[in-house]
Amino acid sequence: MHVSEVEWSKTEEEIAKHAFEKAYQREIEAVIQEVRQRSSKMTQADEMWQLHDFLSARRHEIDGKYEYRYSVLIFVFARLIKEGWLHLDELQGLEKDKLTKVAVMTRM
Amino acid sequence: MHVSEVEWSKTEEEIAKHAFEKAYQREIEAVIQEVRQRSSKMTQADEMWQLHDFLSARRHEIDGKYEYRYSVLIFVFARLIKEGWLHLDELQGLEKDKLTKVAVMTRM
Repeated sequence: MHVSEVEWSKTEEEIAKHAFEKAYQREIEAVIQEVRQRSSKMTQADEMWQLHDFLSARRHEIDGKYEYRYSVLIFVFARLIKEGWLHLDELQGLEKDKLTKVAVMTRM
Repeated sequence: MHVSEVEWSKTEEEIAKHAFEKAYQREIEAVIQEVRQRSSKMTQADEMWQLHDFLSARRHEIDGKYEYRYSVLIFVFARLIKEGWLHLDELQGLEKDKLTKVAVMTRM
């Protein structure tokens, strides 16, 4: 699969951008919920530093994961679907070949 | 002032330990309140990363500040009083000479 050489049409770019942002917003929302829940319960320093560790880890992971480059987007989408932040049908409108690649990768 | 050579009696150690922990608990409580307030309002990724930055900075500062060594405790107490986490009268029971040093330093 020569994913990096794949071309993206204007329409596909819009679909991709939209799906990418939707997944990002969902994941951020989940982290926000977790932060809210933890911070409403915490009373001790160690719980607060654990929250800080949690945020450090999530930030690092999210920064690395959401890479909007067309050469890697197929991989990014496959990962996001696998992790539950995106549904394959939210990529409808992409070329069949791209959708197949994403679908295959999510099953790997 | 040769603060580092000062001796601490058992009673003074207890008073110091208690005051130190009280100040720490107060400061932690203030950070927890701030985290709660921020997290209850936040809706966007950048607000969450700002909360992470805030926690990183506070953790670094607090870790460095709360150094429980008798050789530096007079300085630590002076700083804590200056910042409002401790009151001079919570150190009552310490040798007059130590109290004077702390009081002088808080006015510097």
